[in-house]
Amino acid sequence: MKNMKHPPIILASNSPRRYQLLTQIRIDFSVIPSDVDEDFSLTLPPEAFTEHWAREKAKNVATKHPDKWIIGADTIVSLDGKIFGKPKSQNDSFNMLSALSGKTHEVITGVSIIGLNSDIDLTFNERTFVSFKTLTDSDIRYYYKNYNPIDKAGSYGIQDWFSVHIHKIDGCYFNVMGFPLSAFHTQFKTLLSLNISS
Amino acid sequence: MKNMKHPPIILASNSPRRYQLLTQIRIDFSVIPSDVDEDFSLTLPPEAFTEHWAREKAKNVATKHPDKWIIGADTIVSLDGKIFGKPKSQNDSFNMLSALSGKTHEVITGVSIIGLNSDIDLTFNERTFVSFKTLTDSDIRYYYKNYNPIDKAGSYGIQDWFSVHIHKIDGCYFNVMGFPLSAFHTQFKTLLSLNISS
Repeated sequence: MKNMKHPPIILASNSPRRYQLLTQIRIDFSVIPSDVDEDFSLTLPPEAFTEHWAREKAKNVATKHPDKWIIGADTIVSLDGKIFGKPKSQNDSFNMLSALSGKTHEVITGVSIIGLNSDIDLTFNERTFVSFKTLTDSDIRYYYKNYNPIDKAGSYGIQDWFSVHIHKIDGCYFNVMGFPLSAFHTQFKTLLSLNISS
Repeated sequence: MKNMKHPPIILASNSPRRYQLLTQIRIDFSVIPSDVDEDFSLTLPPEAFTEHWAREKAKNVATKHPDKWIIGADTIVSLDGKIFGKPKSQNDSFNMLSALSGKTHEVITGVSIIGLNSDIDLTFNERTFVSFKTLTDSDIRYYYKNYNPIDKAGSYGIQDWFSVHIHKIDGCYFNVMGFPLSAFHTQFKTLLSLNISS
């Protein structure tokens, strides 16, 4: 990040896409994934769900590194109030993509920044609407076989071949990849200004 | 492209981003840039402007390769009816980004597919709305110095550090990178079905 001083930063996620996005905006950070097991049976509205798990992940790493700033993130897909995480099987993937076919869903990422020694504890979420073309069963099977999207919320990656099926998004593109760069940048700049003045 | 037969394809553009995007959707193609010099003094509405130059580029290569299918593309930025192409100088870049700061502009890509021996001659355009945060003069100077965006319409790249300044898009993300993947895929599938049945 340009001309900004900050404590060492840890990304509490092993997502290669989040790594790539934070690198893209020139954040200097290391990676320590959290030990948190996300529990999808937790009944919260989708936005609150992502904020809860983003904060749990950040807290989990922050307690071991209180002098650093920890970034946690959690991305889900939501359709009609129902939450889709990562698919557990080919069948699960097929059902998710069939449900999303021809419709507009939301991708929500919760982001949490926690620095225990700096008294930093900030959590927010960002929503992006994504509109799919109608998918055939053959499209879905082809995609699963060739791209194996088991590490992706909603069972698709907007940055791979699947992009041909997404005719429109409304909001932040990078949020759909798993990290809302622009919203993060705004919040992070505010944190830095508070940290400098304290 | 999955399970689809087509004549050899040539991309009439030396844009590395278009190369990357067509590769992403598994199109098999070679690259032969056109000799066309885009003339920005041509007075046409923005959509017609991009279609005109996309078609000129495709035609230019098609006449030398009538047995192949040629893809031409032209991307511009449009604000209040004014057309922005690639900046010619640092000053030009500064003026473009200052004009776009804090506003929503359109990115329009014209795409033309021409196959002379197959009687294929199709041109369309795709529009995406892009909303910038307010940029400071320092942001703009930093960006020019570090990213030298002289090969990009509107003087920015949505896929690099500049992404922190884009809080929202409405439409196809890849169109902003220079090629509307989803719209292209739809049109291309239609062409293939016509070509098979003729």
